[in-house]
Amino acid sequence: MKNLNLPLAGNELWRDVVDTPAVLIDLDIVERNIVRGQARLDDLGLKVRPHIKTHKLPLLAHAQLAAGAIGVTAQKLGEAEVMADAGVEDTLLSYNIVGERKLRRLRQLADRCRLTVVADSEEIVRGLAAAFEGASKPLAVLVECDTGMRRCGVLTPEAALQLAKSIHGRPGLRFAGLMTYPAPGQGNSACEWLEDAARLVRANGLTVESVSTGGTPDLHALTHNPSITEYRPGSYVYNDRSVLSAGSCAEADCALTVLTTVVSSPEDRRAVVDAGTKVLTSDLFGFRDYGLVVGRPDISIVSLNEEHGRLECGQQAPAVGDVLRVIPNHACVVSNMVDHVHFVRGDFFVHSERVAARGMS
Amino acid sequence: MKNLNLPLAGNELWRDVVDTPAVLIDLDIVERNIVRGQARLDDLGLKVRPHIKTHKLPLLAHAQLAAGAIGVTAQKLGEAEVMADAGVEDTLLSYNIVGERKLRRLRQLADRCRLTVVADSEEIVRGLAAAFEGASKPLAVLVECDTGMRRCGVLTPEAALQLAKSIHGRPGLRFAGLMTYPAPGQGNSACEWLEDAARLVRANGLTVESVSTGGTPDLHALTHNPSITEYRPGSYVYNDRSVLSAGSCAEADCALTVLTTVVSSPEDRRAVVDAGTKVLTSDLFGFRDYGLVVGRPDISIVSLNEEHGRLECGQQAPAVGDVLRVIPNHACVVSNMVDHVHFVRGDFFVHSERVAARGMS
Repeated sequence: MKNLNLPLAGNELWRDVVDTPAVLIDLDIVERNIVRGQARLDDLGLKVRPHIKTHKLPLLAHAQLAAGAIGVTAQKLGEAEVMADAGVEDTLLSYNIVGERKLRRLRQLADRCRLTVVADSEEIVRGLAAAFEGASKPLAVLVECDTGMRRCGVLTPEAALQLAKSIHGRPGLRFAGLMTYPAPGQGNSACEWLEDAARLVRANGLTVESVSTGGTPDLHALTHNPSITEYRPGSYVYNDRSVLSAGSCAEADCALTVLTTVVSSPEDRRAVVDAGTKVLTSDLFGFRDYGLVVGRPDISIVSLNEEHGRLECGQQAPAVGDVLRVIPNHACVVSNMVDHVHFVRGDFFVHSERVAARGMS
Repeated sequence: MKNLNLPLAGNELWRDVVDTPAVLIDLDIVERNIVRGQARLDDLGLKVRPHIKTHKLPLLAHAQLAAGAIGVTAQKLGEAEVMADAGVEDTLLSYNIVGERKLRRLRQLADRCRLTVVADSEEIVRGLAAAFEGASKPLAVLVECDTGMRRCGVLTPEAALQLAKSIHGRPGLRFAGLMTYPAPGQGNSACEWLEDAARLVRANGLTVESVSTGGTPDLHALTHNPSITEYRPGSYVYNDRSVLSAGSCAEADCALTVLTTVVSSPEDRRAVVDAGTKVLTSDLFGFRDYGLVVGRPDISIVSLNEEHGRLECGQQAPAVGDVLRVIPNHACVVSNMVDHVHFVRGDFFVHSERVAARGMS
């Protein structure tokens, strides 16, 4: 197995060190997930560009690069800056950059790493072009394509062509390809969309270096697909209930858990824990409750307040002082709630790591 | 008007200083809210003990004390420690404290301020008693009562009496009264519950110094009520959509707004802003969408991802680069998402303030 240069555990048990509520990250599982995800995408002939929004940790970005990733993806400028500070050399910033202050920061960031950004409108392209006027190397820009998500992105392959031409025609910019989210899956027409757009752009004499897509839940269903070149998996590093429920991992592959203490057990089948929305968040993510309690499938976390999680139990409720581990619905948002996560390996404590890109925008 | 010692604005416009997404706090409105809330509770003969979970800022805690509050409420030990560090002298920690590590911290905290805590079970009382064995002054403990919230709290007035006796019988502890949340309102039986419990406890020879309740949305409906002595309003300092919708404030009384930029406007009636769950949170709080866009009642924030807010507009969608202000559904949770809030007065910038008790547990 490749050496991902992640720290080893000491002799302390994390139970003796970590107070609740807390976020545990099992590095044994993280290593396995990184290597497995990389191998799967290697097999499919795709370049891997992990999305750091899941972990927000330079240490894990470097582990992903050591495993074979070509660079990272960041959702916000502040996240990309943190990665550059930590020596990450190649970043895709997959978000429209708007406004003079951010464009100035972007120009500075481009001096510190190989940077690619996205655009989905003339307004965005104009802003980027103005900011990179006279730049010694042009800024690589992907056209963001709305292949069904109905969020950002140009709406048709024809609009993608128009924007590609506009980017190509600006001295400070370089058209570098297409970007979409989520991954083209079975039964949706995103593949066709991307193929049409790439064909159209190439027919107009432009090179489509990169066609970038992503999303961990769709990863298990991905087959060889000549219309894409690059994948941006995020959650695969930790996994969570949503990935588990999509069939893309097993419970033992969930590296991030929320550690929580029972603070009240007022009735036989009811208890309250000290993990509320301030650690689990209100993200239901399509589920009816707020996470899986490891080893207690009879328990449902039925509602949350900021500091309280209410449990309904099919069997006797746990007692005051009992400590539970919860696999959250959505790992990425949990990473963003805490200043530190606690690295562990099995029962052993490694260290507490500052979530350097937490809250960055 | 009382001097709350809050900083004045300079000459800069906040539009020239603050980038998005960002949380703005209008101190003109904050001052008015603090003074008005204090006056209303003074009129009702209630002691005021504001809940700092809404703002998490020592500066505003001191403003609330300057206005006449007798102390503050904190939900977590870490929040109470931040307040003690900042010189707040009287704190109610309205949360069961469980586990040796936290109990040691609690004992240390009690040396630095007048501290009151809560308990809702024998297990909690035993832990507190062990931690305060031999303490020079006994720890004040309120019995948390479940008057209908179905969260923490003893379930009956009889159970409240039993726990009061248990607290009274421990050398390191002092029974100080009853605590509940939310406020006894019209049409619920919480008042009767508290009266029964207080009567029962007094009939057994114990003193009920304090009967503490809280909740801003219920504040407007509160009438003189001899069964309670103390109120813990939280949201009143900022207000939010939930308080507005309960009829307890007007839109002009909402001091906290989220500033956000339109980053994509792909269709006539659709736009995307840079405020997602990382600033607005996923808290629906009973609403169908994620906040009120100031001055644009035709806009609905229909869904959020971490960095994207999707807008559906009844009229022409705002353009890329437009800046909007959003009154969130729930202000307290927004405070917890950011390392800094930006103090403003009207159009003018005051300064950026670190949210010192953010993420504390």
